[in-house]
Amino acid sequence: MFEQINGGVCAAKGFKAAGVHAGVKKNSNPDKNDLALILSEKECTAAATYTLNRVKAAPVYVTMEHLENGVAWGVVVNSGNANACCPMSHENATAMAQAAAKLTGHNAEDFAVASTGVIGQTINIAAIEAALPAAADKLERSEAASDSAARAIMTTDTVKKEVAYSCEIGGKTVTVGGIAKGSGMIHPNMGTMLCFITTDCAITHEMLEDALRDIVTKSFNRVTVDGDTSTNDTCVVLANGMAGNELIEWKNEDYDKFYEMLSALCKTMAKMIAADGEGASRLLTCVVKNARSEECAERLAKAVVGSSLVKAAMFGADANWGRIICAMGYSKAPFRPEYVDIGFASVAGEILVCEQGAAVAFDEELAKKILTQSEITIDINVNEGEDSAECWGCDLTYDYVKINGDYRT
Amino acid sequence: MFEQINGGVCAAKGFKAAGVHAGVKKNSNPDKNDLALILSEKECTAAATYTLNRVKAAPVYVTMEHLENGVAWGVVVNSGNANACCPMSHENATAMAQAAAKLTGHNAEDFAVASTGVIGQTINIAAIEAALPAAADKLERSEAASDSAARAIMTTDTVKKEVAYSCEIGGKTVTVGGIAKGSGMIHPNMGTMLCFITTDCAITHEMLEDALRDIVTKSFNRVTVDGDTSTNDTCVVLANGMAGNELIEWKNEDYDKFYEMLSALCKTMAKMIAADGEGASRLLTCVVKNARSEECAERLAKAVVGSSLVKAAMFGADANWGRIICAMGYSKAPFRPEYVDIGFASVAGEILVCEQGAAVAFDEELAKKILTQSEITIDINVNEGEDSAECWGCDLTYDYVKINGDYRT
Repeated sequence: MFEQINGGVCAAKGFKAAGVHAGVKKNSNPDKNDLALILSEKECTAAATYTLNRVKAAPVYVTMEHLENGVAWGVVVNSGNANACCPMSHENATAMAQAAAKLTGHNAEDFAVASTGVIGQTINIAAIEAALPAAADKLERSEAASDSAARAIMTTDTVKKEVAYSCEIGGKTVTVGGIAKGSGMIHPNMGTMLCFITTDCAITHEMLEDALRDIVTKSFNRVTVDGDTSTNDTCVVLANGMAGNELIEWKNEDYDKFYEMLSALCKTMAKMIAADGEGASRLLTCVVKNARSEECAERLAKAVVGSSLVKAAMFGADANWGRIICAMGYSKAPFRPEYVDIGFASVAGEILVCEQGAAVAFDEELAKKILTQSEITIDINVNEGEDSAECWGCDLTYDYVKINGDYRT
Repeated sequence: MFEQINGGVCAAKGFKAAGVHAGVKKNSNPDKNDLALILSEKECTAAATYTLNRVKAAPVYVTMEHLENGVAWGVVVNSGNANACCPMSHENATAMAQAAAKLTGHNAEDFAVASTGVIGQTINIAAIEAALPAAADKLERSEAASDSAARAIMTTDTVKKEVAYSCEIGGKTVTVGGIAKGSGMIHPNMGTMLCFITTDCAITHEMLEDALRDIVTKSFNRVTVDGDTSTNDTCVVLANGMAGNELIEWKNEDYDKFYEMLSALCKTMAKMIAADGEGASRLLTCVVKNARSEECAERLAKAVVGSSLVKAAMFGADANWGRIICAMGYSKAPFRPEYVDIGFASVAGEILVCEQGAAVAFDEELAKKILTQSEITIDINVNEGEDSAECWGCDLTYDYVKINGDYRT
């Protein structure tokens, strides 16, 4: 259907990017980029999803305003400070867009703005304004440029998150690429999740927004616990139409192809974010099958990957399925405990540990082998219906506590 | 109003207790009691609250049945195995009550049954039946007896939880005492919370149940996150009337006195459970004041003490209030971020760190001093209404991960 390609956020035609070090955080490593700029050669149709937290950072409000007309040219984003809950935050978020606009010959309203980092400290806007000209100078369409932008938005992320896919739509090659930063959290959406996606697909604002909203609920929001969302979460997609495909303006076959590709990109990013959760040593995927509804399956799977006890057990490679059925029990989703089967799987094999809600004898050695891998699947069959869902998380480790015990200083 | 006295679950007239080692867990320490018996000299009015988890352990169902008539004589409880999600669990829970009844000359239905420990492994009922006669022999009304019962129900608890109060009601001394075991969890109700309370107060079943239900929601349930509850949570109160006070059969002044005393006992137990959360180094109390409603205040306070990020920051004595306002934001309770004041307090002093939703300059040295104490209060004023609530939790430490990374083995 589509293939993975290089180039990240610069993979689609007409998109340039750059990442530089601005020094947003005092005494920060001069080799660590903390300011990124993404720019399209042509005006883009833009869609975005934002945090549902009642406390929203200023850049979220500013981006909401700027993208209200469904049109944008680029994105300016910093790490090192969330620009939330502090004096002048709205003015400073606007200033970031103004500075980017001035350097690129556009209006401030043409830019999405995002920030990630500590809450409650006034952002060093002077450092950002001073570094932006260098970023504008560096703008180019290359793998290196996407790499430098992807690195600029990292905070406690240990790996950069970048992916791109392309496929044929109506005889034209259409590309979707993006960069993201992890929530870096064990309860992912409590931290900041940022994702910037570019595509050369020709698609209307309405179709782009429909696709993004639907996909985000089934990708990024499935690394979430109970709707926990940070003050800064933002996912923006810019579509400049340069692929030359026939404009997608209704839900036809072309739309389906584009949807599948965008969906694959968001799911890949979501899993990368989960795998790189702060201190994580394993990616956990919880698959709930044969539930009464997809919502029910999702709720059960989320409760499992969100349970501190399950996460700690997975860190210890302990096949403690009692904690899994316990988490399902408090998820508030309907199911019959006496119907539930639970198993674990990884590249090392698969094993059933609970059948019809009760213990089954299993090979502890094999369980240990399965659970010591870096990607673990928790397979749950509730044997009641036909719907399923998959959610992602990570284990709870000493390093999580270490990282979060003194993050601010 | 009332005074704290010694004697725990044996403090009230007519209540005997005992704790012994049965060896419920294979190769367990022979010095660790794991089986407790509590017995009244007279028939008791009984009330109880249970886990809301959809997955309930067998002893919970058995106790529900046995206490349905509002009458009981005693409690039999083991640690080391939850007797949940395994074959024969219902039969084994019933067998525990039958064995206790036979030894004490009562009916099985006169006993509440409870278990705590690992889920999904068949309980060693033979060990329990073999040890019960020794427990029945040891039954006595003494501080030592309450102590041995309190120790028998501990799992990962590091301190026993036992408290008693007495006061005058209608010219008679009425006593309430109890023992509890901690959830031993960072999200407390995910583990097992057990509490057994005895009183010599003369009170009707209806009044006792009303008081207990109301009090549990404002004490034990305020160490809870999002209604998370284990498969085994149980709180039982037995009232044998031996204080000789006039029977409390409506909500008069006597009821109010009894209510206050029972409430104080449950709150003290709840705080002891929070302070002894697995791996905890600090007790966190979050007080939310001037909210639109008590429910709103409770929701906000619970989100704060339940946030892994806030807990990790408290472990690091880091005044990272951004995580507090972020947790409030995703609590789903209504409030205006721009009205919120946040401060920290402990025996070392108090400090304001956020005013009207934004950072205020504060003395980092003083903040560190305040936050390195073992009991910390997070003071939140939402400046909107007149209602308040208090919730309890603990910090998230390396030891939590250590304890839970390999609990089952």
